[in-house]
Formats: sequence, structure tokens, C-alpha cells
Amino acid sequence: MRQSELFTKTRKEAPKDEVSKNAILLTRAGFIHKELAGVYSYLPLGLRVVKNIENIIREEMNAIGGQEVLMTTLQDPEIWKKTNRWDDKVVDNWFKTKLANGNDLGIANTHEEPMTAMLTEFVSSYKDLPLYTYQFQTKFRNELRAKSGIMRVREFLMKDMYSFNRTEDEFKEFYEKCAGAYLKIFARVGLGEKTYRTVAAGGSFTTNLTDEFQTLSEAGEDIIYITDESKKMAVNKEVEDRGGEGRKSIEVGNIFPYGSKYPDAFGLQFQDEKGEKKSIFMGAYGIGLGRLMGTVVEVLSDEKGIVWPREVAPFQVHLLSLTEEAKKLADEAYQTLISHGIEVLYDDRDMRAGEKFADADLIGIPMQVIIGTKALVSKMLEVKERATGKTEELKVEDIINKLKR
Amino acid sequence: MRQSELFTKTRKEAPKDEVSKNAILLTRAGFIHKELAGVYSYLPLGLRVVKNIENIIREEMNAIGGQEVLMTTLQDPEIWKKTNRWDDKVVDNWFKTKLANGNDLGIANTHEEPMTAMLTEFVSSYKDLPLYTYQFQTKFRNELRAKSGIMRVREFLMKDMYSFNRTEDEFKEFYEKCAGAYLKIFARVGLGEKTYRTVAAGGSFTTNLTDEFQTLSEAGEDIIYITDESKKMAVNKEVEDRGGEGRKSIEVGNIFPYGSKYPDAFGLQFQDEKGEKKSIFMGAYGIGLGRLMGTVVEVLSDEKGIVWPREVAPFQVHLLSLTEEAKKLADEAYQTLISHGIEVLYDDRDMRAGEKFADADLIGIPMQVIIGTKALVSKMLEVKERATGKTEELKVEDIINKLKR
Repeated sequence: MRQSELFTKTRKEAPKDEVSKNAILLTRAGFIHKELAGVYSYLPLGLRVVKNIENIIREEMNAIGGQEVLMTTLQDPEIWKKTNRWDDKVVDNWFKTKLANGNDLGIANTHEEPMTAMLTEFVSSYKDLPLYTYQFQTKFRNELRAKSGIMRVREFLMKDMYSFNRTEDEFKEFYEKCAGAYLKIFARVGLGEKTYRTVAAGGSFTTNLTDEFQTLSEAGEDIIYITDESKKMAVNKEVEDRGGEGRKSIEVGNIFPYGSKYPDAFGLQFQDEKGEKKSIFMGAYGIGLGRLMGTVVEVLSDEKGIVWPREVAPFQVHLLSLTEEAKKLADEAYQTLISHGIEVLYDDRDMRAGEKFADADLIGIPMQVIIGTKALVSKMLEVKERATGKTEELKVEDIINKLKR
Repeated sequence: MRQSELFTKTRKEAPKDEVSKNAILLTRAGFIHKELAGVYSYLPLGLRVVKNIENIIREEMNAIGGQEVLMTTLQDPEIWKKTNRWDDKVVDNWFKTKLANGNDLGIANTHEEPMTAMLTEFVSSYKDLPLYTYQFQTKFRNELRAKSGIMRVREFLMKDMYSFNRTEDEFKEFYEKCAGAYLKIFARVGLGEKTYRTVAAGGSFTTNLTDEFQTLSEAGEDIIYITDESKKMAVNKEVEDRGGEGRKSIEVGNIFPYGSKYPDAFGLQFQDEKGEKKSIFMGAYGIGLGRLMGTVVEVLSDEKGIVWPREVAPFQVHLLSLTEEAKKLADEAYQTLISHGIEVLYDDRDMRAGEKFADADLIGIPMQVIIGTKALVSKMLEVKERATGKTEELKVEDIINKLKR
């Protein structure tokens, strides 16, 4: 895409109403727009990152047998009364609304109840199980205070997976498989090194202990003690206060064993081989996409701006044309790159080189290809790695090969 | 995907609480699940259709210069007060909710106001225009009565595009370009022959006349008079009651000229080349994805079930293995097809051939590949076109070539 056509612009100043690094950088670089406290719109660059994260998660959920669905935001109170979660005293962050006829409606806070209720139409026999559903759906949480930029918000896109198994062993096997898929996801979005699996205290949604995935960051609200670096295991201070040195971390995912609580509440059971009714073992597995994006910004950015890892970057290449004379060569390079299916943000704007460098570093696309007057003679393009600042001179064919690798 | 693993099942009986053909067929075939009157979840097959429609629309919106964003469901009342559309007397189908501190919030009914307000951050000069934004975002309408299955609902995914132009001529040119893109979209989803452009009476969102796209169907709530078959033009009875014979039709899209009403309300103006402040000409362009899917079902289905057009079908091929002996050959054909990137629903279930035929016709995938005992000898596969029932015998390589064409 030609940057001259991109409607967003970068800003030099931090927005007055943001304190967190992720919101400041993402706003300055034109990725997000704040609608309300804790409510953010995604602009073209930001949406491309969200979609990349979504696709990574989708691939990993499909790989472990997940079937994608899309449930609704508007929710029937009757479903939630069955598990006693309609009451604001039990779930204290509901948004609710009313139908024109005055009846109450819930605005999706989570989807255990509607998912379980829906499956009663499809599951009756052991042959119908195991079963794994997931979705990318917006959740609404009426938080008293929104904070940490796009990480603790009132409206957010979440991947929630639900597992339904016949035995506790079958459940545990899947639970570990999903934990493995989560580690792959965190590695692919560039957080593998800093992300640990912990057993943490449950919130209002579960009575059991749950497993969390925590990424080390000074912006974190949790404290973890690393117990096994090679296995990437840790303990959350909330579960076991070991005193002494802990590390601040951000919860980037969680997985919950539910037992049969929800399925039993809806009569979602199955007949086994002998015709006996049996309870189903359920689990839930969540990742907030905006939070993950915010964590990447918190952890990987530097003093110049954002540093996107390859798989989540809004474009693969940021092509900068520095001078009027370089324009023709830059146009050619742009056409060559996009004709090879490479996603390029092409800074073709009429602007000083220094401003273009600053914008490119702020936006954080991993590979910068810089075309100035020097390239006109040598036909070699300057390729700069955003993360390290390392540069090399390459022909356009070599750039294509490098990216296809 | 192996059908034995797909968690949805078909049903023989129509659901008791549905009267419209689209909801009956889509429920029986396992594409949708009703949560509440006018509120439907999408099951795996249904979501695949929605995603295909979304991708078609995205391609056509990108082709005319659209930039994709994602705005929010929760809305600031202050923005809507600026255009006097917060009042329930003005917009009578709002869903509203409250923050924990008691402040009102809107639940997105449409996005003209937040889009225009957001753009004040990015637009100030003639150089920033023209500008075309769009999104796939859920809209909420507090309809007194939901009806027509997935076609008139309370929660629905909509593509809404917004145009911002410097002059009325520039606006009109884009408006016609977008109308052209709409006709391409309707053709690609299989409704080209039956879809007409009309000038229709505006609803509560516009004071001007608007253009609609209407698809002929007995399930329609509108009446149109075809005025020019070759140009696919018609007139809506609401605008001009010509008496006599009209045809029932479904509104599948609409495009609105707004003038400068919204931009001016937010001070979204631009400086022209001479430094003078000028008003911006705005338009909006909507397509409801569920409604479009429902219309395809209404218009193209037959007495046996749904008939999906190629580009929107949940899978390209429905592979049926009819007997135990045919299983090995069917497994091989399945592997060959998917290794060539073809999307296959493989009915590998232990079930009578007659039931498999009925399910395949109900689900409506355009090409059925049927492997019974006969194929074991000839190695030729029976290929049946769902729409016409025509069959031919082909080798698996020929099927691949046919689909790649």
C-alpha cells in the first residue's frame, strides 16, 4: 500500500489521556483510536496486526481439532439463570440492556453458558465426543476502571475455545495439548522467550485453580516466580507468595478446567457404550487478541517505537523512497515486491528523509528497504532490520528470496 | 474436513419456531442456531459461508480504494447528541446500556457519527481526501419484531463503507463506482440475474432518497417495478406506486448520499488549495452479510435443500463414500483433493447411502463426488452438480482440473 493513501498519520506527541506505553505508541503510530476509556477502534495498520494474530491462533486451534463458530453478543438471561450467573452480585461486570418490550438481555461477558446450551442440540452419544469449539468474539466487561491501554478494556476481541470430553483422562490430555498450542502461539507472536505457564488463583469465573500464561514485562500487574526456566514454568504470587524476588508479568492467556459444572447445569450429558448416562468434562481456553498485541508492544518496542515480529507485522516491508530522483527506482522495487506477493507499505510521501526514518521506526515494520540517491548508481538497496538496526545492501531479488525463506 | 468429526448434524424436521425458508433450511442443515428471536449464532458450516461472503466484499471494497478499520460496539452518547440521534424518539431502535458509574452508553446501531468524529484527527487538508473507510462490524437494532429468519434480526454483521469527498462531482463518481462494486458482489454471490438497483424512500437514517439493491424473491418485503432489464434498474413501490404488476424483492444493499450533514456536525472540513475551509461530501454504503446469505438461500434453494453458488459454498466438494468397500478409494480421493488445496467435506460416516444423499442435497455444496462400489472397478468417480442434478464420470485429476479452472 502507498503510504500517501493511508489515511492515518503518525504523531510526535503522546496523547494526553494515555499513560501506558502500548496505548501511547499504538496511538502515535496510528494503529488505534480511543472511543471511550477502555474502548478502542482499530485503524488500518492495527487491524492488520489483529488479523495476523487471529490467523496464527486460528491455525493452532484448527491443528488441535477446534471447530470455529461465531456466537452472539445479545444473550438470553434464562440461560445465565441456570448457572446463577445472571445476578450482578455473582458476576459483577455485566453490561445489560433491554428489548423494546422491556425484557432484559445480557451483553456477552463470556460464552460458557450459551455454548453449552447450544450443544445440547448436537451431543447425546459417546460418538459425538470429544468436541472442541472456538470462536473469535467480542467480550464486554463493565470494569469500574479501564487501564493499561489496550490491555484492560471494556470491549475486546477474544479467542475462546471450549472442550467437551468423555473422561477426565481424555480431558487432561486435551488440556495439555491446548497448553502446547498456546506456547506455539506465544512463540509465533514473538513472546516465546518471555512467556511462562503458571498455576494461578481463579477469578470470578472459576472455583478451581487455573493455568495462566504470563509474559515478563514491567507493565504487568502480576508477579511470578520462575520455577523451571527450561520448561517455562512459574508460580503466580497470588497462589503461593514465596517472598523475595518475583518478576512482573502480563497474563496473555488462561486455560480453565471446569469439571462437569456447566454441562450438568444444562443436562448436556452423553450415553456411553453401555447406554449409561455420563457427565461431560469441560474446559475453557482464552486469549485476548488486543491484550496480546499490547503485550508485544510493551515487551518488544524500543525508544524509537514499535518493533513488530515478522508474523504479526502489518506489512512485511516498509519501503522508503528518500528523494525525488529515487522515486522511479522505488516505484519499480514496489511493483516487483508486490508482484511477488510481498506485503509492502511504500512511503512515497513528499517529506524529508529524517521524518520518514522516524515514522518507519515508530510504525515498526521489521524490514526497512531504503532507496536514496546512492541506490541509483549501485542498484543495490539498503535493507535495515528494525529490531537491530543492522543494514546490508541487497538486490531486489535477494530481498524477495530472504522474505520467502 | 471429515463429516464424522463435524459436530453439527442435519435434522429432518423444520424447527417449530421458524416460518421462513432461509431459517428452516439453514437450521435443518446445521448452519445456524437461534439464541433468541432475531439473534442467531453461526455454526461451522454457516461461518464458512459468512467468511466467504466477507472475503468477496473485502476484495471489491479494496478494489475501489477502501481502507478497512474496526470500530467499536460501545458508543459515547456525546457523539450522538451532536447530530441529535441519541434521542430514542429520533432513532427508535437503539439498544443502550450503562457503565458501572451509571453513565449511559450506546450499543452500535450504525457508525456514521463515530467514523466522522474519528476522522477529525486525520483530515484537515485537501491532500487528505478523498478517503474511503469500511468495516465488518456487528450492528444492533432493537426491532419490535424480528422476522424473516436471518434477514431481519436484532444483531447482525454488516459491511459499512463511508466515503468522504472534496466536491459533489468527486462524490458522485465514487458513488457510481461503489454501485458498480455492489453489482459485482451480488453477481459473485450468485444473485446477479435477479438483483436490481432502485431509488427508494429513505428510512429513519436519511432524509434524502437513497439507492437500494433489490433481489427478486417471494420472501421479499418490498415491491419493485423493473424499468430497464438490461441496465438492471427498477423503481421501489414506496417511491412511486405505479399500480399493476410489481415483483416482491429483498433489499440486499443500500447506498446513501448524505451531503455534508455529518461532517459539518463534527467540524470535519478541509482547507482547499487556496486555504479556504470547505465542507466534505459524505456517503454510506451498507450490506448485511447474514441477510445476503439468507437471500441466497431463499432464491437458489430447491425442494431438496440449499444450493450454494461456487464462491460462497462452505466447501467446494462434498465427497460421499457409500459403502464399506469404497472407503479406501474415498480416503485416497480425499487426500488427493485436499493435497491440491481443494476444500472438501468428506462424508465418511457409517450411514446408509440414501441418508447421505439427502444430507448432501440439504447442505448444498455445489459439487458432489460419489464413490460407491461401481467406482472400485472403473476408478471413475461419479460427479454430480447439486444445482442441476447432472452427473458425469471423472477421474480425480479431471475433478481437480475442473475446480482449478
